Amino acid sequence: MQPTSYPLNPQRTIDELKELRALTSNEDGAQRVAFTETWAKARAWFREKLADLPVEVETDAAANVWVTLRGRSDREMLIGGHLDSVPNGGWLDGCLNVLAGLETLRRIAAQGTPPVTVRLVDWADEEGARFGRSLFGSSAASGTMNPDELRDLTDRYGTRLEDAVREYGVDMDRILDARQQLKNAAAYLELHIEQGPVLESMNLPLGVVLGTFGVERHSITFTGQSAHAGSTPMDHRRDAFGAAAKLGLEIREIAKRHGGVCTVGRVVTKPGIVTAVVGQCDITLDQRHLDADALARMLQEAKDASQRFAEEEKVSVEWSKLWQIHPIPFHPTLIELADEAVTEVAGVSHRLPSGPLHDAAEVARAGVPTIMLFVQSLRGLSHAKEEDTKEEHLAMAVQALDRLASKTMAWLESQA
Amino acid sequence: MQPTSYPLNPQRTIDELKELRALTSNEDGAQRVAFTETWAKARAWFREKLADLPVEVETDAAANVWVTLRGRSDREMLIGGHLDSVPNGGWLDGCLNVLAGLETLRRIAAQGTPPVTVRLVDWADEEGARFGRSLFGSSAASGTMNPDELRDLTDRYGTRLEDAVREYGVDMDRILDARQQLKNAAAYLELHIEQGPVLESMNLPLGVVLGTFGVERHSITFTGQSAHAGSTPMDHRRDAFGAAAKLGLEIREIAKRHGGVCTVGRVVTKPGIVTAVVGQCDITLDQRHLDADALARMLQEAKDASQRFAEEEKVSVEWSKLWQIHPIPFHPTLIELADEAVTEVAGVSHRLPSGPLHDAAEVARAGVPTIMLFVQSLRGLSHAKEEDTKEEHLAMAVQALDRLASKTMAWLESQA
Repeated sequence: MQPTSYPLNPQRTIDELKELRALTSNEDGAQRVAFTETWAKARAWFREKLADLPVEVETDAAANVWVTLRGRSDREMLIGGHLDSVPNGGWLDGCLNVLAGLETLRRIAAQGTPPVTVRLVDWADEEGARFGRSLFGSSAASGTMNPDELRDLTDRYGTRLEDAVREYGVDMDRILDARQQLKNAAAYLELHIEQGPVLESMNLPLGVVLGTFGVERHSITFTGQSAHAGSTPMDHRRDAFGAAAKLGLEIREIAKRHGGVCTVGRVVTKPGIVTAVVGQCDITLDQRHLDADALARMLQEAKDASQRFAEEEKVSVEWSKLWQIHPIPFHPTLIELADEAVTEVAGVSHRLPSGPLHDAAEVARAGVPTIMLFVQSLRGLSHAKEEDTKEEHLAMAVQALDRLASKTMAWLESQA
Repeated sequence: MQPTSYPLNPQRTIDELKELRALTSNEDGAQRVAFTETWAKARAWFREKLADLPVEVETDAAANVWVTLRGRSDREMLIGGHLDSVPNGGWLDGCLNVLAGLETLRRIAAQGTPPVTVRLVDWADEEGARFGRSLFGSSAASGTMNPDELRDLTDRYGTRLEDAVREYGVDMDRILDARQQLKNAAAYLELHIEQGPVLESMNLPLGVVLGTFGVERHSITFTGQSAHAGSTPMDHRRDAFGAAAKLGLEIREIAKRHGGVCTVGRVVTKPGIVTAVVGQCDITLDQRHLDADALARMLQEAKDASQRFAEEEKVSVEWSKLWQIHPIPFHPTLIELADEAVTEVAGVSHRLPSGPLHDAAEVARAGVPTIMLFVQSLRGLSHAKEEDTKEEHLAMAVQALDRLASKTMAWLESQA
């Protein structure tokens, strides 16, 4: 394979990203919130880009847009992304995936009928910014969505989700028809900015994603006894914050021991006044790991530690589950192929888990062999107008996705 | 001295406390908030109790009520307390002091003209419940009050302090005239419930107060970097809560090392969401010690520790002073006399500092030799309707105050 023989033009992707930014951003950043006019404008612009390609375009029952290049086989290689953004978002999150996929599709189409059918999908409402429910379109396609849990969600103006999405052609009674879209899917590829600091800190442009973290999210309440800060000697206290502080430090050791991440993001003290020992302390705990067993051990160790600290501080402790999802590992062969593609383009590869969830996780849950590539994020920033990636890295990302597509098609062909 | 020869009747004090409770409490507790009708009702009831005594009653420029039993000398022994309570308060805080003082005054008066003049004072607005400014009357008498800082304080309904107190005869332009009340003061005695758990935990009815704590009260802000809880590895974090948790635990060691108390009462995390590493953590620190040097060392050690933890966590730290007061030690001779009185009544004495401030602290700041007695509080509770003390302990408290008054008068006489 000679890269120079490709009609692939990564600079065109960068130019198109800037064109989309000019069309759908303001001084506060990208405004392509799903199920809004600006999002519709982005999708109309995208359709124009497809005009000269030998593809079929359809919108499924969940508002996902599918661009199909027929191949010699019905088996499908999918490339996915999302044009929607958070409010005041960045210029790359989601649309880089779609536009790099478009460039790859152009290259494949230019070389004639591919061995397998190639489909580019623009998922609807990955971010969930308007109604608080992310992975909307992809969870409909994977079938994990329960439409009845979503109908009555409202946006900040009180508009119901069911009514809002109807304006974009989605009938919540039929939305799971989108599941048909994955019936011939044999592989799914997604490129995304890292949204974290790992690749930048290692000075690497590209990485291969091993899967998305499983998450344990809990609320923990320590209850001691509020008491006068002046009249209560230290050894008479039942200090709820003492136990919370110990746990806040211990969960970091647990994370390091198991190679995951643990975060206490919210701490509330009651009565919460300067002159009173804390009688009640509520904290949140978020634990993530790529390995389900390790995640379970991290949770158990945190629970054990909370009991130990509660006893030490003569307080009680209660746990309440907020949310939970199992780890979603990506496909081992595709991980190897992605490693090859990244190494060819960047000279070196690195494997890392994804902390955030992505549409790829939903596709993987549906049983489709799945892989993601990450490109470096400057300062790890995303969901903000400061989100950025060096243009040379964006170009390398397009090249790596393209090479991964070729390798994946060859792999699928070899299975036939 | 034969206690049985006294006409002292501690049971009368207990009965009067119950009478006052019936008159000025509801199902939520005591409602004798200063500068309200219920408070005025309590004071009118108190005046009726004085009718048969050979005393002069006057109200000073700060609304303090002074009950004077003339002695053979103009030098004065003062006994103080406060009839005002917090809203939904207890049946003892403040009024035990006044009514035990009344019983002592009765006993002294019954024995003829005392060697020194004895004055019982009902301080105005010790609690500061309505306008947030405690030790109102006693700080006017001591001269530490700055009236201009108080005039424009408002209650929850927007009424200005200056206007509210005018209805009770207080002119803020003349309030410091109350300073004249202390010009002949040679000793000040005050009995109070402990409002803490120390005496109960030691199974002791009574204690001698060494003085009131000095206080250092600060707000501390740790600033790191908010980051995604999923995509930010542990070793890339600048976790503001990590530093705050370390300091929250360290200040307890500092307190134990120096024999003081240190409290983190309020913790606020920002952005304060389950999925974000804490970018900013604001905490309050309250440190108290009876010894000024030890208090200064506790503060310095906390500051040093905060710097060390900030460096460890790669965050910054800023301190901002909220309030500060120096320790106010009570008089060494009066401490000895109080120890004798308590030992005679209870068989054993214990010396302890006072965490809360009291009117006694203001009198001591004015240079008057001062002492306080504490009587056990059940479960350390106060400022709540559950506030309670065993009746046998209340009776012992009245006896101890009475004996202390006798010893103090003898001491003052010996100085003449």
